[in-house]
Amino acid sequence: MPSYKAPVEDVTFLLNDVFQIDRYNNLPGFSDATSDVRDAILSEAGKFSEEVLQPLNRSGDLEGCTRHDDGRVTTPKGFKDAYRQFGEGGWVGLAAPTEFGGQGLPATMAQSINEFMISANMAFSMYYGLTLGAVAALNVHGTDAQKKTYIPKMLTGEWAGTMNLTEPHCGTDLGLIKTKAVPNGDGSYSITGTKIFISAGEQDITENIVHLVIARIEGAPAGVKGISLFVVPKVLVNADGSLGARNGVSCGSIEHKMGIHGNSTCVMNYDNATGWLVGEENKGLNAMFVMMNEARLGVAVQGLAQSEVAYQNAAAYAKDRLQGRSLSGVKAPDKPADPIIVHPDIRRALLTIRAFNEAARALVVWTTLKSDVAHRSENAKDRQEADDHMGLLTPVLKGVLTDIGFANSVAAQQVFGGHGYIAEWGMEQFVRDARIAMIYEGANGIQALDLVGRKLPKDGGRAAMAFFGEVSAFAKENGADEALKPYLGPLTASLGHLQQATMWLMQNAMAKPDNAGAGSTDYMHLFGLVVMGYMWARMVKVANEKIAGGDAAPYLKTKLITGKFFMERMLPETSAHLARLQAGAATVMELPADAF
Amino acid sequence: MPSYKAPVEDVTFLLNDVFQIDRYNNLPGFSDATSDVRDAILSEAGKFSEEVLQPLNRSGDLEGCTRHDDGRVTTPKGFKDAYRQFGEGGWVGLAAPTEFGGQGLPATMAQSINEFMISANMAFSMYYGLTLGAVAALNVHGTDAQKKTYIPKMLTGEWAGTMNLTEPHCGTDLGLIKTKAVPNGDGSYSITGTKIFISAGEQDITENIVHLVIARIEGAPAGVKGISLFVVPKVLVNADGSLGARNGVSCGSIEHKMGIHGNSTCVMNYDNATGWLVGEENKGLNAMFVMMNEARLGVAVQGLAQSEVAYQNAAAYAKDRLQGRSLSGVKAPDKPADPIIVHPDIRRALLTIRAFNEAARALVVWTTLKSDVAHRSENAKDRQEADDHMGLLTPVLKGVLTDIGFANSVAAQQVFGGHGYIAEWGMEQFVRDARIAMIYEGANGIQALDLVGRKLPKDGGRAAMAFFGEVSAFAKENGADEALKPYLGPLTASLGHLQQATMWLMQNAMAKPDNAGAGSTDYMHLFGLVVMGYMWARMVKVANEKIAGGDAAPYLKTKLITGKFFMERMLPETSAHLARLQAGAATVMELPADAF
Repeated sequence: MPSYKAPVEDVTFLLNDVFQIDRYNNLPGFSDATSDVRDAILSEAGKFSEEVLQPLNRSGDLEGCTRHDDGRVTTPKGFKDAYRQFGEGGWVGLAAPTEFGGQGLPATMAQSINEFMISANMAFSMYYGLTLGAVAALNVHGTDAQKKTYIPKMLTGEWAGTMNLTEPHCGTDLGLIKTKAVPNGDGSYSITGTKIFISAGEQDITENIVHLVIARIEGAPAGVKGISLFVVPKVLVNADGSLGARNGVSCGSIEHKMGIHGNSTCVMNYDNATGWLVGEENKGLNAMFVMMNEARLGVAVQGLAQSEVAYQNAAAYAKDRLQGRSLSGVKAPDKPADPIIVHPDIRRALLTIRAFNEAARALVVWTTLKSDVAHRSENAKDRQEADDHMGLLTPVLKGVLTDIGFANSVAAQQVFGGHGYIAEWGMEQFVRDARIAMIYEGANGIQALDLVGRKLPKDGGRAAMAFFGEVSAFAKENGADEALKPYLGPLTASLGHLQQATMWLMQNAMAKPDNAGAGSTDYMHLFGLVVMGYMWARMVKVANEKIAGGDAAPYLKTKLITGKFFMERMLPETSAHLARLQAGAATVMELPADAF
Repeated sequence: MPSYKAPVEDVTFLLNDVFQIDRYNNLPGFSDATSDVRDAILSEAGKFSEEVLQPLNRSGDLEGCTRHDDGRVTTPKGFKDAYRQFGEGGWVGLAAPTEFGGQGLPATMAQSINEFMISANMAFSMYYGLTLGAVAALNVHGTDAQKKTYIPKMLTGEWAGTMNLTEPHCGTDLGLIKTKAVPNGDGSYSITGTKIFISAGEQDITENIVHLVIARIEGAPAGVKGISLFVVPKVLVNADGSLGARNGVSCGSIEHKMGIHGNSTCVMNYDNATGWLVGEENKGLNAMFVMMNEARLGVAVQGLAQSEVAYQNAAAYAKDRLQGRSLSGVKAPDKPADPIIVHPDIRRALLTIRAFNEAARALVVWTTLKSDVAHRSENAKDRQEADDHMGLLTPVLKGVLTDIGFANSVAAQQVFGGHGYIAEWGMEQFVRDARIAMIYEGANGIQALDLVGRKLPKDGGRAAMAFFGEVSAFAKENGADEALKPYLGPLTASLGHLQQATMWLMQNAMAKPDNAGAGSTDYMHLFGLVVMGYMWARMVKVANEKIAGGDAAPYLKTKLITGKFFMERMLPETSAHLARLQAGAATVMELPADAF
């Protein structure tokens, strides 16, 4: 059976030392999150993930969700009680507005503990994850009445939320949706249509479910300009806040999926369901994007989280499993064989995973801090810079962290040899669960297109220029630091590849957009490697400073070596990405469709 | 539901045009395989795979295998009848010796149709695949009586065979096995022990199962020098060939696995089972290696085969699914959206898979031809060269074709978006099934070590030098061919990387073996890319010649473009592999075990 230990020490290092979160105490909510409070939250969240959620992970996978003939859906044993505890513990609303019962703490704290929960039980984490997406959309675009009606109960965990976008014939291309909204004349609408792949669409965990649904109001323009967002509660809410009649929405079936069996993925049938407009008519996509950006960051964390728990178990196995002898001489003469951690190829695999995990975690903290600034700062320039960062890096995080997170789950499974393929060891579940993160919330190919087609050229490339400038400045400022040289050399070279790639896109993709499309995935991964390399350089600098200051904690030395591994073994990939991008679209587009 | 069409045209191109199999008509069995006979075999095998095996693939996955309380194992509905047809059709013994009822045709033919069967139903293919491994070991190391007793019935499909190596505490390190063999005094042995992960260990498909089992004879030396191989039939065979009493071997349980659910993976308990020595005492590992080399090539084909069937379904979906519009202008104005095959990133994904599949298929045909030469040629020099080739390339094929085959199954699944994650579409099964091929028959890390630690330095590097020489000579001979230049340039550059890597290993791994271990996986993949690039150059040369000769078949043009894609998009990876290898072992080995 797999195990899990929340990486509290690493998060603390990032919050306290690398990103010095105390510097942000001018932002609302931040001064409440003192060092002691942060420690307490991380420690309690770690315990909750380890003791309550992790034990339900494999049983939830085995049992899965069941739809009954009457449309009810039963979640795996223990999920309902765990969600009650989760809600009562205040975890759902940790970073949510205090006026609706949230604790108003930094999103950075919430995202950090989110990693713990996902590592422990990804299927479970989706129940509150989707809820928070719905809270975010309502909070930005809902009316005061809508906010008051729905948000508080969602934050206590009594109600949950969902996102309803996809239909059988359209996922990526939402302009094609057919679900209809007909005005009832009383301000409400009658919603009819079928939505698929609705995570947590129906469940027995909460007493109500707040569905956010995109639909087309009768007579609306075709395409994405005719999409509106509606709130459609499963159970209608009376004026006094009590639950009323059942609405016309039901679960038609649940999907049989590769993984995340503990989360119910539903076909939802809306049959003259009563819904209320959220935000403006025909501006539904904008409102939806609020949910989607939050959700994309959350999905990126899923990639990291599965990679982390897979790593922990692979490392433990490698220290325990005796097989073969070290190439450089017997290491455990008292045992029939050496533990496989002595083998360089096993270490290479483990370090590949770990060097990603720690950079990805830094990237998540850094980006969520920017999200906090974007949402909470009173300084317009700070907000704009943070917004630029978020816009540029959200697709990179979503695409890269989930692609590599999945690959790492596979690599960790490989460390187990044949046992990795056997269900009871739990490693194959991490692989199956991690797989979905590459697909939902915009498949990773769409993230790459979003990056090269929209985020990169936006505002004349302002966000990318700011990022390149920051990394260059860091390299320059620290150029004389001998201890940093082995890190800054490779980073600067890879930044050069990224800048060349960016230049190539500017020169070749305007006239021929296919050149952008054909290079988009390579560009996204090139970007991801550079930004993770930058995270490593910053972490190493801080680790060096702490060591120089007399801190003898072993993890600091480990940081230096793991970071070096990243530079030596992972950054070489940037030149391959550049070469592939520069190959352009000609060959890719040459075959007629029927030759495939 | 997924579909499958056997790639008969591509195999025919390889056999007839690229490798000109008719040139080998001096080898026994080859002259029987005339062009007409080959066409008939490929066509019939294609039909069998498409019509009999493919329809059982998903149902076999869903139903899986069941162990009953009495130890019997039931395979999925339809498997038994399909295996009977497969045996009666002569497919098991297609390339087996005629003296035992085989057809004696080239192994190259058998391996080509093996790809079809695996694409159609990987779990099914393992029943005859393991049987053929057992036949090979008995044929090389068994006594005449053993051969006559067991091989004919295995070739008709009446009996099956298995390989029993792994025990709970040892897989890779077979020196640790504990299964005991005690002489009975009558030439037989009494075998006692537990074996795990035994594919097809128990089933209801055949009336007898011929287990090949490694065990330690009482008093044998410790480690791998004390391992002997035994044949242990499930049902003892009377002197007249009829079935006698049940032997002391039974299935203790079956594993719950990530995939290949249609194949029973058993824990086998040997409890004073009667077995007979195969080959010499304490030379069991040698005898086993005969099975393992055959089996490794077969597993390599599993990687290709899953990648092929996944590609076919992804390409079909991409031509059918309407979503979004082409970046270069609407392509299907009469439809609500363009088919996603218009998008460069989708084409990039599909071409990545296809460029691998066709090179891998060429590599399998080339290498199996060498296997035919090694086993059948009367010319000692030819045999030695073919043996060198087989030894060097078997770990490359096993490691690279299964790693990339799995990655391609994932990429093909990605083309389906959310539907790829849903079981009924079948794509996730390809991923789950393909995953095992990276693990069994020697995990891919072991293949990489086998390559750098044994196959590369063997005989002073003779095999590698011969391969480098062949590719260099090809590039030189065709250096003036303008049409080949875009292919030979990248190939030569990548060959240079491989030679540099080889030199680096020679200079740095003798004194420090960890340098070999730390670079082994990168070296294996670097090797794989170069040898696939060579296959592409040869295929393109032949395609050019055929086009120049007036052949207007569309697949020839497709070959040129797909090969170009390989050069532009896949070979750039060789420089990254070289850089990682040259990073050496220092960083990898620096962390103490408890820091992981």
